[in-house]
Amino acid sequence: MSISIQTIQAERSDDMGKAIKVGVIGAGRIGKIHIENLCYRVPNVQVAAIADVAVDETCKWAKQFGIANVVADPMAVISDRSIDAVLICSPTDTHADLIIAAARAGKDIFCEKPIANDLGKTTAALAAVKETGVKLQVGFNRRFDPNFKRIKELIQGGELGDLHIVKITSRDPAPPPIEYVEVSGGIFMDMTIHDFDMARYLTGSEVTEVYASGSVLIDPEIGKAGDWDSAVVVLKFANKATCVIDNSRQAAYGYDQRVEAFGSRGSAIAYNNKPTNVEVSTEKAVCTDKPLYFFLERYMDSFAQELKDFVEALESGSPMPVTGEDGLQSLYVAIAATKSAKENRPVKITEVM
Amino acid sequence: MSISIQTIQAERSDDMGKAIKVGVIGAGRIGKIHIENLCYRVPNVQVAAIADVAVDETCKWAKQFGIANVVADPMAVISDRSIDAVLICSPTDTHADLIIAAARAGKDIFCEKPIANDLGKTTAALAAVKETGVKLQVGFNRRFDPNFKRIKELIQGGELGDLHIVKITSRDPAPPPIEYVEVSGGIFMDMTIHDFDMARYLTGSEVTEVYASGSVLIDPEIGKAGDWDSAVVVLKFANKATCVIDNSRQAAYGYDQRVEAFGSRGSAIAYNNKPTNVEVSTEKAVCTDKPLYFFLERYMDSFAQELKDFVEALESGSPMPVTGEDGLQSLYVAIAATKSAKENRPVKITEVM
Amino acid sequence: MSISIQTIQAERSDDMGKAIKVGVIGAGRIGKIHIENLCYRVPNVQVAAIADVAVDETCKWAKQFGIANVVADPMAVISDRSIDAVLICSPTDTHADLIIAAARAGKDIFCEKPIANDLGKTTAALAAVKETGVKLQVGFNRRFDPNFKRIKELIQGGELGDLHIVKITSRDPAPPPIEYVEVSGGIFMDMTIHDFDMARYLTGSEVTEVYASGSVLIDPEIGKAGDWDSAVVVLKFANKATCVIDNSRQAAYGYDQRVEAFGSRGSAIAYNNKPTNVEVSTEKAVCTDKPLYFFLERYMDSFAQELKDFVEALESGSPMPVTGEDGLQSLYVAIAATKSAKENRPVKITEVM
Amino acid sequence: MSISIQTIQAERSDDMGKAIKVGVIGAGRIGKIHIENLCYRVPNVQVAAIADVAVDETCKWAKQFGIANVVADPMAVISDRSIDAVLICSPTDTHADLIIAAARAGKDIFCEKPIANDLGKTTAALAAVKETGVKLQVGFNRRFDPNFKRIKELIQGGELGDLHIVKITSRDPAPPPIEYVEVSGGIFMDMTIHDFDMARYLTGSEVTEVYASGSVLIDPEIGKAGDWDSAVVVLKFANKATCVIDNSRQAAYGYDQRVEAFGSRGSAIAYNNKPTNVEVSTEKAVCTDKPLYFFLERYMDSFAQELKDFVEALESGSPMPVTGEDGLQSLYVAIAATKSAKENRPVKITEVM
Repeated sequence: MSISIQTIQAERSDDMGKAIKVGVIGAGRIGKIHIENLCYRVPNVQVAAIADVAVDETCKWAKQFGIANVVADPMAVISDRSIDAVLICSPTDTHADLIIAAARAGKDIFCEKPIANDLGKTTAALAAVKETGVKLQVGFNRRFDPNFKRIKELIQGGELGDLHIVKITSRDPAPPPIEYVEVSGGIFMDMTIHDFDMARYLTGSEVTEVYASGSVLIDPEIGKAGDWDSAVVVLKFANKATCVIDNSRQAAYGYDQRVEAFGSRGSAIAYNNKPTNVEVSTEKAVCTDKPLYFFLERYMDSFAQELKDFVEALESGSPMPVTGEDGLQSLYVAIAATKSAKENRPVKITEVM
Repeated sequence: MSISIQTIQAERSDDMGKAIKVGVIGAGRIGKIHIENLCYRVPNVQVAAIADVAVDETCKWAKQFGIANVVADPMAVISDRSIDAVLICSPTDTHADLIIAAARAGKDIFCEKPIANDLGKTTAALAAVKETGVKLQVGFNRRFDPNFKRIKELIQGGELGDLHIVKITSRDPAPPPIEYVEVSGGIFMDMTIHDFDMARYLTGSEVTEVYASGSVLIDPEIGKAGDWDSAVVVLKFANKATCVIDNSRQAAYGYDQRVEAFGSRGSAIAYNNKPTNVEVSTEKAVCTDKPLYFFLERYMDSFAQELKDFVEALESGSPMPVTGEDGLQSLYVAIAATKSAKENRPVKITEVM
Repeated sequence: MSISIQTIQAERSDDMGKAIKVGVIGAGRIGKIHIENLCYRVPNVQVAAIADVAVDETCKWAKQFGIANVVADPMAVISDRSIDAVLICSPTDTHADLIIAAARAGKDIFCEKPIANDLGKTTAALAAVKETGVKLQVGFNRRFDPNFKRIKELIQGGELGDLHIVKITSRDPAPPPIEYVEVSGGIFMDMTIHDFDMARYLTGSEVTEVYASGSVLIDPEIGKAGDWDSAVVVLKFANKATCVIDNSRQAAYGYDQRVEAFGSRGSAIAYNNKPTNVEVSTEKAVCTDKPLYFFLERYMDSFAQELKDFVEALESGSPMPVTGEDGLQSLYVAIAATKSAKENRPVKITEVM
Repeated sequence: MSISIQTIQAERSDDMGKAIKVGVIGAGRIGKIHIENLCYRVPNVQVAAIADVAVDETCKWAKQFGIANVVADPMAVISDRSIDAVLICSPTDTHADLIIAAARAGKDIFCEKPIANDLGKTTAALAAVKETGVKLQVGFNRRFDPNFKRIKELIQGGELGDLHIVKITSRDPAPPPIEYVEVSGGIFMDMTIHDFDMARYLTGSEVTEVYASGSVLIDPEIGKAGDWDSAVVVLKFANKATCVIDNSRQAAYGYDQRVEAFGSRGSAIAYNNKPTNVEVSTEKAVCTDKPLYFFLERYMDSFAQELKDFVEALESGSPMPVTGEDGLQSLYVAIAATKSAKENRPVKITEVM
């Protein structure tokens, strides 16, 4: 289940001098996780620089990894000629511009999802990537989760036959702060976009039509901000498969992340991961642990694996496991879903392209 | 899990003379099951007569239960003054007329679902019931399944908080004969109607809008007959809950009947029932039994329980556990779902009332 | 999982006159269950007479099944020439004498376990059976449980390879009254004897040596009565398999009845049966039902099945599914276990034969 | 479930100069795992030296961690005044002498289990530890497994009431090479000793008597080497709890590591860990993954956690989580078990002390 440390080490090249040098832009929560993974769990890579507005604090934090090169200005990292690739982990509204700058500087890029919340910025960024020929991986980390990867393998291996339906349950333990909701682009852009990518990944096909239903059942403030806190989405795919997603911003029992794929030859269900496998029987009931609390706990392995695969793809020259096109297609779906929920009708993807 | 026989017996009145006398109209597959349950698992009731076109065969079969009164004409049962109540288990297109006749004869009625496939017949039947004051229970047997009843109790007891979403998975092991598909009224009328009733039962609310998506993924003949073999339905309820149903006419692993209810305080999931609880670990995998094959195996207990509750309600004069109104409301939803799938748009229930 | 009623009916011969006529001796808790099963769930059999000291009460209770012939004296049943077979459900200390009397009267016999608590009575009873050539089935009902039968099939089918170890967990929800403990013959004779038979059934071999450890952890009164309320037993079998049994007179969460078989090719585990398959997730935990409360709930199906198989064996003339020899061998093991626990040493079965 | 990396980092002191300096003696399979964990998953510690006979190979391997100080002679590490503590990961027969030498040099010690296979060496080593006042932790890593730790917490918290029985299933996926079997001290010294420690850990009490049964069911060569490949052990504890352990050198489905604790208020069961939580339903069965293959996969987290706790105990001056006394007591039990299996009788621990 976990990326075994000893395996990583065995693969580490003896000559660390050949390691890929990356600069990380943005050392917030997710940036810090990526840096730790790069230092401890990914072979053949070296964090050569970090850019973050909070230079002093970041500098202090980075010392434990032996990283001394911490700057405030992302461009100092992007223009550093010794750096091979950049990780963009800064706020969403900076992603597109940084991608463009990094592409022009010839850096390969790992960018947190989404590339941008609007199509114009996204396509501009992708155009720069295409034009310069750099590589770009988008941070849809859930593709690297062992459970979901197993389901993908079962589908690809034909063990489920023709795929008929994919069902994704994705519920957060608690809603984000209202300030975040106000700028996030809405539940479909911010939260469901992971599920849109998962649906595309599992079906291996593109969405043709979206029907989305949003409700405000948890916090009226979310409704006042023009968003929904609960949603159901039906996706129709080019290959005739259907996907149903249900989202909630608040599950009392924690982070609920399940996927079911049903085909002509059978079904596969990924259940939640839990802290332990202990079952307790008492006079009251037979109980087990609740699911792992939130994405840091649940997807810890997938965060390391996506970077491991990023670095391997850079080394081997093989295609990126999640491309800019993946980012764009999921954005189309998110925009269509928002439109569908607002207008209460199925929306064809071609309407929003 | 099972209705314990000894309990039933303990409740049986000492004086069998006071038992409720029922006549059963239609001794096909489901009629036979009801007769056996009435004889063996339901206290205080006596099968006094059976009407079936195949008189000889039925007569021979009924001998084992000591039932001698077998006739061809349903009206002979309905007009029999010694009979208190009738079970209507004949083909769907005869239900409404038999309800009307039985109501006029003052008989209480248990009628298999659906009352009819069109609204006119259904409302006419219900009008006769209302007018005559007889009692009517509709055969939505799944309400009596111990798993689903538990979920209902959890919802009613407030243990799940406000109900946000209900998810119903309902997949048959194999499609019915194409001849059946041609006259069944379609997947929503014939198969999903059970799920519509389940959704209404669990939410305790009425559907206001339906979005349905149908596909032909299993057998093109079903498509030629104007029907779908796979479906996804989203129901919006008056109490703001949403329900998602997914149906398939063919699951390789058998009958898949699961329900999930998610609310502000937690969730409850009813998993499939299996023949045994044995888990086998070999070099290949860790495996358990497949789900019970089909509705006879899966809902055996619920068939007995619905009649037990029917007889108890007759005895005590308490309300029927599933009413004619339940049949009518689910029919509205089925008609709206069919319309939605055909027109590819959400349909308000008021459009079809 | 359940014996399907319609199947039973289908098998019921049209001519009830040919049904096997049984007399039931002892209409206590288990006798009543057997009578109900014979009336409702077993084809081709008729309860022709009941003997019980509480004639009036039994007579009143039996009326619901249409059984009028209720007497006080077991010999009246045994000497009734119209009766083909008897069920002996009276207290243990009467079993051996009734078996002898019934055998001499030429009746086939179903006898509740154990035949007797001492070897002399048991062998005398078996000698009478052998001498007269009547058939005898002993009431080790758990062999007919679908879970355990599945494990037996897996072993017999070679799917687990050579059998290495069998593990049986058998815990009651609450201890019996101390009066019962005082006359029961002790935990190994009364409770573990079911597990000894299960071990013999699953291994298909005979016990050669027993090591038993008993403790008084639940109720000191049980210790004062010279018995234990908790026990661990290790059995060595002729075929080199080992069996470990653990017993408790009191499990807070109900009746715990699990079996595990481990062999060279894999393992099979039978988990507990529960009232429903519902899983509830809340802020506190993820919980399911407790196991079915006690043997009446847990083994309801197996009680019916053992009688069905008894009647079928009588009809077909095939061997009894559980023989007097099975009763005797398990008694040897129980006696050896008691000796082992008292003397704190492994005891060979040959020591107690 | 996993030791979260970010937490570790957060705890890392800013001043790495104060980190505890350890020398590792023996860089075989387990030594390498410990070194990697010390480098990547344990805060406030630095691997300052490694001693291994294969100096060149180890030196090359160690370069990736920036460890340059690799020597052949363990005494060079032990006498290095800059080193605070040593990890003894060399072959078992060297443990006692190295403990004595390290203790005399004033080093705190982490030693792989067992301290030695005979009592004389073990007590001599413990005497040296006592005399010099150094700290000693023995490598019973399973105590640090999240599943088993949860069960310990439940017992300690009183949630299971008085502890009546502990059941441990411990089966390897495949037997070790016969050369290893010949020198390992036998199944009870080599394999079951982990279970003896687990039983002591969970019960919080000492073993008073052992009954062990060994069989040769897998490989006759193991029998020829004077050992068994299958075993059942019953332990009686001072606090009246009983423990049953079953071992096999070969489980077709992989590493089987389960624990059950049963007490007056309920039970807790730790099931196996699996690579994913995916369940696949097909025409054949409903299947999940097999358990994680062997101890490296299964106990990866516990290996890191035991060193983390070792370092924390050194820093804080709090008692070692697993002491030399723990090593000694488990050795008593292993010796008694071997004696019991050979002599086929229960053996009191006092007999072997």
